[in-house]
Amino acid sequence: MATDIARRIVLASRPAGEPAPDNFRLEEFRVPSPGPGELLIRTRWLSLDPYMRGRMSDAPSYMPPVAVGAPMEGGGVGEVIASSHPEYAAGDIVLGRLGWQTHVLSNGAGLRKLDPEAAPPSTALGVLGMPGLTAYIGVTEIGRPKAGETFVVAAASGAVGSMAGQLARIAGARVVGIAGGEKKCRYVKDELGFDDCIDHRAADFAERLRAACPAGIDVYFENVGGKVFEAVFPLLNLHARVPVCGVISQYNATELPPGPNLVPALMRGILTKRITIQGFLVGDHFGKAGEFYKQAGAWLREGRIRYREDVIEGLENAPRGLIGLLRGENFGKALVRVA
Amino acid sequence: MATDIARRIVLASRPAGEPAPDNFRLEEFRVPSPGPGELLIRTRWLSLDPYMRGRMSDAPSYMPPVAVGAPMEGGGVGEVIASSHPEYAAGDIVLGRLGWQTHVLSNGAGLRKLDPEAAPPSTALGVLGMPGLTAYIGVTEIGRPKAGETFVVAAASGAVGSMAGQLARIAGARVVGIAGGEKKCRYVKDELGFDDCIDHRAADFAERLRAACPAGIDVYFENVGGKVFEAVFPLLNLHARVPVCGVISQYNATELPPGPNLVPALMRGILTKRITIQGFLVGDHFGKAGEFYKQAGAWLREGRIRYREDVIEGLENAPRGLIGLLRGENFGKALVRVA
Repeated sequence: MATDIARRIVLASRPAGEPAPDNFRLEEFRVPSPGPGELLIRTRWLSLDPYMRGRMSDAPSYMPPVAVGAPMEGGGVGEVIASSHPEYAAGDIVLGRLGWQTHVLSNGAGLRKLDPEAAPPSTALGVLGMPGLTAYIGVTEIGRPKAGETFVVAAASGAVGSMAGQLARIAGARVVGIAGGEKKCRYVKDELGFDDCIDHRAADFAERLRAACPAGIDVYFENVGGKVFEAVFPLLNLHARVPVCGVISQYNATELPPGPNLVPALMRGILTKRITIQGFLVGDHFGKAGEFYKQAGAWLREGRIRYREDVIEGLENAPRGLIGLLRGENFGKALVRVA
Repeated sequence: MATDIARRIVLASRPAGEPAPDNFRLEEFRVPSPGPGELLIRTRWLSLDPYMRGRMSDAPSYMPPVAVGAPMEGGGVGEVIASSHPEYAAGDIVLGRLGWQTHVLSNGAGLRKLDPEAAPPSTALGVLGMPGLTAYIGVTEIGRPKAGETFVVAAASGAVGSMAGQLARIAGARVVGIAGGEKKCRYVKDELGFDDCIDHRAADFAERLRAACPAGIDVYFENVGGKVFEAVFPLLNLHARVPVCGVISQYNATELPPGPNLVPALMRGILTKRITIQGFLVGDHFGKAGEFYKQAGAWLREGRIRYREDVIEGLENAPRGLIGLLRGENFGKALVRVA
């Protein structure tokens, strides 16, 4: 074993608004030893995801919050370094909810063994993992873009958005991304092959989006909310579908925006255009995971799906990475290289 | 023919806010004579429906507006009084988009012959007509209440709401209505057999609704919008479905309500509870009409479905009837007895 000292990051306090470094605390603990039926994992990669902001709050949500003083939760990829578990041996690479810590004891529950030959292990946290499956569910189960339809996705250079747009392209849709900044927009167009990408920071964002969608919008894959949603909504076509995957622009909000209250206008639009707005969480759809891994893995090997990772070095920098993610500072799937 | 003089009500001007009597004008015209292939219908019943408010405005909607100076549109039931059409004979009772007029020439397009022995002809405008089919689509295609789930419907004593709730009862749901005033609520509970009905005019409406839905709300059939929707939304359960059929509380609105803007809260709720909000219009679903007529006709004969009509006497009183409908003053399916 490399060291006797393990490290973890715990939730020190709940943030009000944007999380700050002092909402987190780095702790050391003794590397545990696996008992009978247990294995010890050394974390290699941690995933940073927008949902983590919700876990830091005790507002009602779909999952209980992280307790103050407890390690931050999250998915990770690690290497088994000791095992008394019959199904795992030292050297195995595994995916699981490892949390923000360098070493984790496990009884094997919830772990999945990865084949490092099939794809880089970090992809199990992104394009071939939860974010990829999230995109797949939103596109294939809710959005269902048809050939020739216009598909718009916000946070288009991110882990979920980049995959959603590429899946819609494969389905034959015209795909327009929305991203923050010209650099991301260029990547979305040039590398991911979207038909267009609009910078939501541009002063004339709404006009540009309208110009990029001359036939209106049939599917809007919602990751962002707020002003982006307000610009999209008037462009929705009859029978448009809006899978709601996230509203990252709102996660740090401490109060509702000022009036007028646009809900009545929203409901009238939903009615007259027969729009479907549907929230979803990937956790309700793990039954589709097998089909997804197989399909997406093939597309990745064939070069039909591309991805980009934004790597933060060191567990101690994970808080900074999450704070940046919530500001839209990451460029691609946000990962922490732990070891 | 009873008279040479026919009457119609035309749109005199577009209302701003609540329609007023002077937005309508009664006109006389000579009763026309059917040419070859035509038939002449004398209107017996006109239907008054909330959607008519939309047709009076030139704001973009799912149908073009009624032109100023043109007869108000609407469904009606009439008797054929002269025919040169091979499929119609004097004495036939027909359903069609007759408009607000005592006499109508037709080439037969869009007409449906009614069997007055099967059900009272006026029911073809209500429980066995467009409002009934609307309820059927919203319940069976979108809301899909399961046995034991809680189904809430607004405007519960109206043509659509009363049918929606009864259909949900037949599906085995616990059904809670929302209506305006104690008299309507008593009818909804005692005559229609809903499990409960809450008066949205009560000062403690939101609290009463919560108490009436101890297991939350799985399906909310939306006819009203505004404050009613705001009281319902926090009670929605995981995976709740919200078929949006109408938002009558908003149809006369001339401006949006003051802030805060509740859209971000709505979108977060949609996400965390995986709610589906889906607008629909019966016109997209006429393919289901045959199945509906058969099924609903049988339930009506068996006494499993009840209905109530609110009859206004005389074409000249149709404007007053529509104005009252938009205020919630009708009690049951609003009809005008024309002849």
